[in-house]
Amino acid sequence: MTAVSPLAPKTIAVPAPLGGVRFATAAAGLRYQGRDDVMLAELAPGTTVAGVFTRSLTASAPVLWCRQALAGGKARLVVVNSGNANAFTGKAGEAAVRRTVETAARLAGCPTGEVFIASTGTIGVPLDDGKITAVLGDTLRRVAADGWERAARATLTTDTYPKLSQAEAVIGGVPVRIAGFCKGAGMIAPDMATMLAYVFTDANVPAPLLQKLLAAGSETSFNSITVDSDTSTSDSLMLFATGAAGNAPPVNLAELRGFRKALDRVLRDLALMVVRDGEGARKLVEISVLGAASRRAAKRIGMAIANSPLVKTAVAGEDANWGRIVMAVGKAGEKADRDRLAIRIGGVLVACDGQVAPGYDETPVTRHMQGDEIRFEVDVGVGRGRATVWTCDLTHGYIDINGSYRT
Amino acid sequence: MTAVSPLAPKTIAVPAPLGGVRFATAAAGLRYQGRDDVMLAELAPGTTVAGVFTRSLTASAPVLWCRQALAGGKARLVVVNSGNANAFTGKAGEAAVRRTVETAARLAGCPTGEVFIASTGTIGVPLDDGKITAVLGDTLRRVAADGWERAARATLTTDTYPKLSQAEAVIGGVPVRIAGFCKGAGMIAPDMATMLAYVFTDANVPAPLLQKLLAAGSETSFNSITVDSDTSTSDSLMLFATGAAGNAPPVNLAELRGFRKALDRVLRDLALMVVRDGEGARKLVEISVLGAASRRAAKRIGMAIANSPLVKTAVAGEDANWGRIVMAVGKAGEKADRDRLAIRIGGVLVACDGQVAPGYDETPVTRHMQGDEIRFEVDVGVGRGRATVWTCDLTHGYIDINGSYRT
Repeated sequence: MTAVSPLAPKTIAVPAPLGGVRFATAAAGLRYQGRDDVMLAELAPGTTVAGVFTRSLTASAPVLWCRQALAGGKARLVVVNSGNANAFTGKAGEAAVRRTVETAARLAGCPTGEVFIASTGTIGVPLDDGKITAVLGDTLRRVAADGWERAARATLTTDTYPKLSQAEAVIGGVPVRIAGFCKGAGMIAPDMATMLAYVFTDANVPAPLLQKLLAAGSETSFNSITVDSDTSTSDSLMLFATGAAGNAPPVNLAELRGFRKALDRVLRDLALMVVRDGEGARKLVEISVLGAASRRAAKRIGMAIANSPLVKTAVAGEDANWGRIVMAVGKAGEKADRDRLAIRIGGVLVACDGQVAPGYDETPVTRHMQGDEIRFEVDVGVGRGRATVWTCDLTHGYIDINGSYRT
Repeated sequence: MTAVSPLAPKTIAVPAPLGGVRFATAAAGLRYQGRDDVMLAELAPGTTVAGVFTRSLTASAPVLWCRQALAGGKARLVVVNSGNANAFTGKAGEAAVRRTVETAARLAGCPTGEVFIASTGTIGVPLDDGKITAVLGDTLRRVAADGWERAARATLTTDTYPKLSQAEAVIGGVPVRIAGFCKGAGMIAPDMATMLAYVFTDANVPAPLLQKLLAAGSETSFNSITVDSDTSTSDSLMLFATGAAGNAPPVNLAELRGFRKALDRVLRDLALMVVRDGEGARKLVEISVLGAASRRAAKRIGMAIANSPLVKTAVAGEDANWGRIVMAVGKAGEKADRDRLAIRIGGVLVACDGQVAPGYDETPVTRHMQGDEIRFEVDVGVGRGRATVWTCDLTHGYIDINGSYRT
């Protein structure tokens, strides 16, 4: 692991044990030496599950399995390995998934449809699943309620720090908790930018409601971030509700308002930690687009700015080059009024009415660009659609990491 | 100007004088010191014109002018400045265009609608057009038929070498010539990746036919290249036919088959020179996609591969990481059959039937990746659509150039 990102949170807030969830990890030696690369989460019987997965048309074998298993709505085991993505591994990859799921289900005494798996790492290299199944039995015997940080760490690849978050809420007068972790630093883009994220709650929530909450929450969190515009074949965001908190099962979303807010906070928190660990990132960039024809248009314009290599290198160079923001708005393909476009950087009006702002003084803007959290606000002047997306700068570090990942 | 790209042609083949076209350049001092930054091309009376421009919704003032002037179908003067793009300069930018065009038309004794202009450089900085109009009269007096290389050089910004190309053809038994130059190195993407390109022929071709040829030719040349996925606000590709060769005017495209081939060759030649001068480029990458649902789908898949930062950094690292090609195919959003996908690198079959090729030996592929012209061939296994696109690698040089462009 390289040096920790300068944008990393100063402390790691590890969640306390959460009813119905236990973890264990193991070193299966798939790719990495001297670290755990298998994460196992054991869930209480009756745990409900929701999931959102990559829209890649070359999705990995584990993603195909999880999509199918999700129909059952129940989960007992999660098995994640790092170091090998088991993606583009053909029929052999599907067989590896089947063997892993079958072994896990037998050991846990549950149906195979309650086992969810994920693999992250190099694409196209056959997965030696025997190394995983060989350690599953022992790993399952060692599960413990306080294994959050080790669990998060076992899933990491090019990440420089583990990403954990938690929140509390109340459902029908009963306090419940939400906690989760995720991994991801590169190949992060719209349409499920997660890589892998696992969120757990001790609340009792039926699977269909859980799925609705997760789908909505992913839009303003993991689907609103980008590191490099590349979409992984393995992106998986899953939410498990163990019911250990003992609340009466809610029957509609209205009863889950507070829970939803807490969940959205955890999802956004985790998503931003991914951007903060963006490969080579030195600056976090928040881009708010307003005045667009619709929310969708605003998001598309925001993503065009967030994915522009010229905008991202300007941020890396601490250069308040707002002309590149104009360029990115223009290429987004969404309605924008050139003569009403307004741009603020760090709150300072830089451009308005189709040109540089009257009396524009670059000094405070340059100072803002020298910080490590950059804010762009872009009003495209045609409607009321708004969206906020996040990205990071494009630096020499990104080239270093990705020009030599496999070798 | 930084060191010349290692991918640059070894010699600059400067076109011989071409009937009906004369050039002159001047140093107006817009941004650069000690070099010419204004290019003027004077065309014989009756010259016809065609043009293809950026699809950016924040197109520059000169682009808006050219689109409008194109309706007349005739051209007498072309005025191009480098150092300032006159883009996002509001009403002031439009006024600058108007003054420049009016001055040029008065000096040349032609209607304003026969003057075409372009500006390239920094966006959002008001253009001091007085500096341009001040030199126009003297520059026009100095036009000469042998000014090709100086003309090409005056339009450059971050380019490391001038880009010129030429070809011959026959129309109705009469030999004709085509020659042109272009500039562009960054902010190069689909939907007119040109930045600026000016192509001239001494053939006699009516404007409507010229426009058809140029629109078609731009698709397989400038619209099939990408350096960084960013689209300029100023992209302009123009073709001028002076008629000096004296051929009888053709009445349909069938009479222009040979001319079209020659034109397509010049356009592709110029477009590839842009990729070869991609900011920081050390390798040229040709990506052929076949087996797609349509030509359009093939091109979209090709561009997804060509724009992927992970693919481009892998090329920079000389890493035959074909898994990233699979990833890019998956994110393109076009139909692909994971289990029939086949990938060749440098002609060697790397993957087929949804997994690594049987007995795959990386040695020859790694050797190919160490060269400076890389070839990917991707069969997505669903249809007969084909397309070829070109890009370059993403290196530390790109970050260096764009992290400090303005400062």
